Amino acid sequence: MAESGEAFTEGTSTEQIEVKTRSGSYTVYIEPGARQRLPGVVERAAPSGRCVLISDETVLGLWGDDVLGILRRGGLEVAALSFPAGEVHKTRKTWARLTDEILDLGLGRDGCVVALGGGVVGDVAGFVAATYMRGVPVVQVPTTTLAMIDASVGGKTGVDHRSGKNLVGAFHPPAAVVGDTEFLSTLSTDLRGQGFAEALKHGFILDLSHAEDLARSSEALLDGDPSVTAPVIRRSASLKARVVEADERESGFREVLNFGHTVAHAVELAEEFRLPHGHAVAIGMVAEARLGEKLGFTREGTAALVEEKVTALGLPVSYEGCSGEELTRLASHDKKNRQGQIRVVFLSEAGKVDANGGWAKVVDRTDFEAQIETCLRGGG
Amino acid sequence: MAESGEAFTEGTSTEQIEVKTRSGSYTVYIEPGARQRLPGVVERAAPSGRCVLISDETVLGLWGDDVLGILRRGGLEVAALSFPAGEVHKTRKTWARLTDEILDLGLGRDGCVVALGGGVVGDVAGFVAATYMRGVPVVQVPTTTLAMIDASVGGKTGVDHRSGKNLVGAFHPPAAVVGDTEFLSTLSTDLRGQGFAEALKHGFILDLSHAEDLARSSEALLDGDPSVTAPVIRRSASLKARVVEADERESGFREVLNFGHTVAHAVELAEEFRLPHGHAVAIGMVAEARLGEKLGFTREGTAALVEEKVTALGLPVSYEGCSGEELTRLASHDKKNRQGQIRVVFLSEAGKVDANGGWAKVVDRTDFEAQIETCLRGGG
Repeated sequence: MAESGEAFTEGTSTEQIEVKTRSGSYTVYIEPGARQRLPGVVERAAPSGRCVLISDETVLGLWGDDVLGILRRGGLEVAALSFPAGEVHKTRKTWARLTDEILDLGLGRDGCVVALGGGVVGDVAGFVAATYMRGVPVVQVPTTTLAMIDASVGGKTGVDHRSGKNLVGAFHPPAAVVGDTEFLSTLSTDLRGQGFAEALKHGFILDLSHAEDLARSSEALLDGDPSVTAPVIRRSASLKARVVEADERESGFREVLNFGHTVAHAVELAEEFRLPHGHAVAIGMVAEARLGEKLGFTREGTAALVEEKVTALGLPVSYEGCSGEELTRLASHDKKNRQGQIRVVFLSEAGKVDANGGWAKVVDRTDFEAQIETCLRGGG
Repeated sequence: MAESGEAFTEGTSTEQIEVKTRSGSYTVYIEPGARQRLPGVVERAAPSGRCVLISDETVLGLWGDDVLGILRRGGLEVAALSFPAGEVHKTRKTWARLTDEILDLGLGRDGCVVALGGGVVGDVAGFVAATYMRGVPVVQVPTTTLAMIDASVGGKTGVDHRSGKNLVGAFHPPAAVVGDTEFLSTLSTDLRGQGFAEALKHGFILDLSHAEDLARSSEALLDGDPSVTAPVIRRSASLKARVVEADERESGFREVLNFGHTVAHAVELAEEFRLPHGHAVAIGMVAEARLGEKLGFTREGTAALVEEKVTALGLPVSYEGCSGEELTRLASHDKKNRQGQIRVVFLSEAGKVDANGGWAKVVDRTDFEAQIETCLRGGG
């Protein structure tokens, strides 16, 4: 395809999303009450009927008894493990401790991991599953909008490193994704909103109407209205699933999902991971749209439109936390770099990325450094 | 197939072995001087022309300058990393340190890892590659008979854990395997011999004539005669490659490769990994053949034949280091266990495993404990 939006404007949301990739197929359920499906889903993944639920302490406190009860009433043997909430705990140390604990529990290859939580839990628990005895199945049970929309689909797992995010990890597609929109009731409005940054991204790169729907429904989405939220999340997860199916390993088309992320990762490094990922992505999308206009990759007016939709979802559009020079240094350390280059996915216009010259373009370091500070601060 | 030997008796050794699996295809080169192929092989794996060579200190001292020179003269940018030799260093700690060092070197996703060494180096460096930025290619350059025959083909990578061997790891097929039989010149006779335990195993489970060839040529093989060694190793690697092609993820047929290994892993645990793997496998094959006869899975006389060939290669056939009770406890902790069962691959006769009832059979713990001590000591 010559442009990213072409194959994506007709897709509709069905109740279940089937993701078919070379390394395996799985079903994504996103609906109110989806957690009741867990016994059946886990039983298919774990022939022994044994599983380990991994969560963070916050989510385990809110939903642990509920989900453990469902699994146990379904006849499964389940133990619960947890770690303190937050990106700072997405480390090799947490991964190693969880692995030790599962080994102590004696889980065999015929068991599975159930990851209950947001993106951090999904990434850490997914990486534990990916490397436990060279891989046991993981059932992803995302509890945040962000994780339902983005993190639980696609098979990326991993932990952070002092040099950057997700630098240690593996591709390990889930056995299934069970996203229950009832989980969103215990999130703050702010946390609910963070997730929609990635949803907007799916709209900006693939289907503008999705971004427009999000902005139009922002009030109901931020309130967590399940009747509005479930189909929107399904639509977004479905858009992502189509990208992942086309290119699981990020060698080509999947790169479009990095729109906004070159800047976002650099900002997260500058903030030492204290800034929510959704905020960093919101800032990154606006900055990269502005940069694309300045460098001639992006149609004029696109950045204003991106900024408008991002604002509608209550997300930040500017960043003043570090200099352009520092941000350039951090961006050039991004793992998507090839040969030290800075690579950025530019919209050709809102809803589309142009394939010519590659889905991500190489930006000269000097050009990047000259422009990025202005782009981040919103000035002319 | 109803028996493991059926599809394997006609195979011949070609100069290159092509391994085709669902997660990728790769070529195995085993010949004198194969390391001269490295520049071409690495260039295909690493578009950036950058690679990191990982070795242990012993091998790096013996072959480092030679191999680094070949890579550099071939126009590649290469840095060398190493860790102390030995299975005790096959740990998460070594893996983490190597990962840190490669991140400091700034290797991108378009670089690759070259693993120069025996099985430990291949496993650790393979796991580093599997998890570095969610996976970069690894070129396996085995320097021991064992690694050429067994470890470098099949995509298993990982590190040990206090609870057992290889409990943390990933499947990560190599980009290519470059086995230069000239490397074997710097091995001791004992080290060369250890590798042939796995070669014998390939014969016992798939093609008795291969085991007979090994026993017949044992003197030349232990001396490291390259004209005899290269085709024998190729034949063995080729047998393994056919198994891996049929079942990459060990869900079925690949289990036959575990012949001898239920006991071997338990013995290695009892010895805290101080016993060479080849010795443990030799002991395990003899013990499991005897156990198979006692339990009625294996034709009478098979164990005597297995013992004879193992002895011909100068490998041990008995073990007195721990009680049957202790060994049973250690065997029941093996990761191949399902639901706490002890699973053993039994020969139906020399050269064959019977598929009926599964490639591995479940052995009652009480039966195992009652018999295993006698089987290990060679008594009646």
